[in-house]
Amino acid sequence: MEKKISMEKLVNHCKNMGIIFPGSEIYGGLANSWDYGPVGIELKNNVKKAWWTAFVQESEHSMGVDASILMNPRVWEASGHVASFADPLMDCRECKTRHRADKLIENHSKGGVNADAMSNEEMEGYIISHKFACPVCGKHNFTPIRQFNLMFQTNRGVTQEKTNIIYLRPETAQGEFVNFLNVQRSLRMKLPFGIGQIGKAFRNEITPGNFTFRTIEFEQMEHQLFCKEGQDQDFYDFYKGKSMEFLGGLGLPAEKLRFKDHEKLAHYAKAACDVEYQFNFGWGEINGVHNRTDFDLSRHQEFSGKNMEYTDPITNEKFIPYVVEASYGLDRIILALLDNAYEIETLEDGTEREVMRFKPEIAPFKVGVMPLIKKLHAEKAHEVYRILAKKFRVIFDETGSIGKRYRRQDAIGTHFCVTVDDETINNGTVTVRFRDSMAQEVVKLEDLKDFISKKLED
Amino acid sequence: MEKKISMEKLVNHCKNMGIIFPGSEIYGGLANSWDYGPVGIELKNNVKKAWWTAFVQESEHSMGVDASILMNPRVWEASGHVASFADPLMDCRECKTRHRADKLIENHSKGGVNADAMSNEEMEGYIISHKFACPVCGKHNFTPIRQFNLMFQTNRGVTQEKTNIIYLRPETAQGEFVNFLNVQRSLRMKLPFGIGQIGKAFRNEITPGNFTFRTIEFEQMEHQLFCKEGQDQDFYDFYKGKSMEFLGGLGLPAEKLRFKDHEKLAHYAKAACDVEYQFNFGWGEINGVHNRTDFDLSRHQEFSGKNMEYTDPITNEKFIPYVVEASYGLDRIILALLDNAYEIETLEDGTEREVMRFKPEIAPFKVGVMPLIKKLHAEKAHEVYRILAKKFRVIFDETGSIGKRYRRQDAIGTHFCVTVDDETINNGTVTVRFRDSMAQEVVKLEDLKDFISKKLED
Repeated sequence: MEKKISMEKLVNHCKNMGIIFPGSEIYGGLANSWDYGPVGIELKNNVKKAWWTAFVQESEHSMGVDASILMNPRVWEASGHVASFADPLMDCRECKTRHRADKLIENHSKGGVNADAMSNEEMEGYIISHKFACPVCGKHNFTPIRQFNLMFQTNRGVTQEKTNIIYLRPETAQGEFVNFLNVQRSLRMKLPFGIGQIGKAFRNEITPGNFTFRTIEFEQMEHQLFCKEGQDQDFYDFYKGKSMEFLGGLGLPAEKLRFKDHEKLAHYAKAACDVEYQFNFGWGEINGVHNRTDFDLSRHQEFSGKNMEYTDPITNEKFIPYVVEASYGLDRIILALLDNAYEIETLEDGTEREVMRFKPEIAPFKVGVMPLIKKLHAEKAHEVYRILAKKFRVIFDETGSIGKRYRRQDAIGTHFCVTVDDETINNGTVTVRFRDSMAQEVVKLEDLKDFISKKLED
Repeated sequence: MEKKISMEKLVNHCKNMGIIFPGSEIYGGLANSWDYGPVGIELKNNVKKAWWTAFVQESEHSMGVDASILMNPRVWEASGHVASFADPLMDCRECKTRHRADKLIENHSKGGVNADAMSNEEMEGYIISHKFACPVCGKHNFTPIRQFNLMFQTNRGVTQEKTNIIYLRPETAQGEFVNFLNVQRSLRMKLPFGIGQIGKAFRNEITPGNFTFRTIEFEQMEHQLFCKEGQDQDFYDFYKGKSMEFLGGLGLPAEKLRFKDHEKLAHYAKAACDVEYQFNFGWGEINGVHNRTDFDLSRHQEFSGKNMEYTDPITNEKFIPYVVEASYGLDRIILALLDNAYEIETLEDGTEREVMRFKPEIAPFKVGVMPLIKKLHAEKAHEVYRILAKKFRVIFDETGSIGKRYRRQDAIGTHFCVTVDDETINNGTVTVRFRDSMAQEVVKLEDLKDFISKKLED
């Protein structure tokens, strides 16, 4: 009964239904920036809450932080981003377009060649020997490759002096690392313990794409587990398992998720894998688990001159902790959830219905409240809204036939619809209609809140 | 019994107790950036949730959005920020320090002169005629005043061409305005309706200060109410009332809050006022309510060429809606809550205790769980933690005497402490200790979750 949904259809659906809009759309947009609409922000908030509950609240050994986006620029020297967080770019001299050399090679070889492992000279040699044409104009006249740093930079203070350059953080992780000592000392944390954070990061990508999959501004949910060397492999395995459990718990099916071990490890990493989701455009990373060893804290010790050692309270041994990172791309998880939830069903009567089958915990709106006839039932329906809205995110919908309103709520994944009619006014009952089964049930108004609470928990 | 707390003492307390840390501290910080620690982020999340519930969830006529920080630069031309969001700065030629001319005048006149109303020439004349000395070196050798825009700018794409300049948003409001049509159409909203948003904004301030009161990076909670001209004054009054209600609901006492009408209205504003809180450094704005008329949508219509009119579904009348803005500085509200909650009490036995008297809804941790003796009771205490952590944000504390642990939890505002001891293992009871009264009560473990739920709601 189900149809495969194209990305274009999903993008249009998201715009039309208030889920995700193109950013700054009235000004023609800003390349690959997106704004979450009224439906999307509720979905996002629900996923954030689920993550915080799983990774911070329910773990006895984890604490949250919320570090600034703007950090001291030395942070990015220590992390290696200033020196090497760069893309190999080349221009077409004919049509003035700019391209990533590694992507040209990977596309040309259909993924058969790993350009990450090549030097600039090797990539140039490959491009010349395989007679690459510019994908825009078809000519063969590229500049040499230059490395362009992906960090957005700006100036602190009011002058454009070099000493004032600061960066928009390209990842949230450093906010956890630079606060390691402050968190450990202020709350007397004992190893192993974790620090979780949700926040925005920015990358000056020239080849973004696939809707919200790759954007210049994105949100990460990250947990860094600090432990003693020797415990790191166990925690690495633990967070691989926890990743699958978390993503499955949001409603992503196991058959659309897979681990992909990194072929080429960063020089400091002991082990690293992605969790990929099967998007309509192919498998894409939504989560990474990395055994980062003591690299991060050692680098910060080196660059800041601050001792980053932990003292074992029993043995008095001093050492720099290892870090196991579990990093989740919030926007990519939202995209996977939208992709997975969106279905166009053909019903028995031959009509189609669009439905987003979100799990109740993450459904943007739990209940749609509808007066059957606006003039007669709107007042009572507002009353019902107010009863429910203290506890749930509810949406009021009074325009068009009830059938049309049900369909609209299906299309944004609203879990229940509650219709207010003469029976409500005369007998104190409402009709509750279920999104997935489309079944209806008459419920007493006084029981409605508990009825919905209970159904949402089932 | 209560002592007045200095800002310095509050800053130290926040650092030592894991509430707020200096940003990038191991690198000597980044002028006036701050990171929320494990305690602060929970407080912040609770305030955000309270705001979203009050301004989005419980209002039938409001929807949320989450717009990008990076927007099309034309947005800031339309809003007027490119042309005039600037500070009048002058340098001391002797010691090379930079100063805001308006602030020098206001400080010198102790607020008696409104420098906002003066031109650059008038300010220069005032500074010369009153023989201002540089506050740093004491010399009298200032440069003329220049206007410096407060927006951080960066380059989209990988070249530094002028056409690529984009800005970090200096306010969240434009994200609601540019999405007005998308929200209205996708969810068939009828006037009056509101759009709420929580998000970060950035200003390149050279004179930040007073802890988190003025920072280069800050978070806003904003609600824009769109309505027909003529309804605007009523909504303005309504949101003034709602502001006081919301801030009071968080626990800020009425006697520390006041309205301050703007003396000088922006040229487009019909009415504007701040809500100020009485900080230890004086009254400071934490919330603004503004009748912005149809200025914002008219400007966006002019600059984007898109018709921003709303069509009344009954009369078919077309018009550009008026906007009433209620804007809340999240970091400033957090600062007010910390300032208000923090007390140093002298107890009957002459000892002092530090306590943060947060209302239960916003207390960072609801419960501290403590094994009386680690070796004997830790396992059972972890079990109690897991029972409670499904529902509440709980903190585990096993280091030092119970008395010390109670004090530490008082100092971060934890509402209850639950002590696990032999009685728990033998009789299934725990001791619940209340933060404010320091009273204790024995509760059956099986009743604990409901007991705490109920007490938090009282």
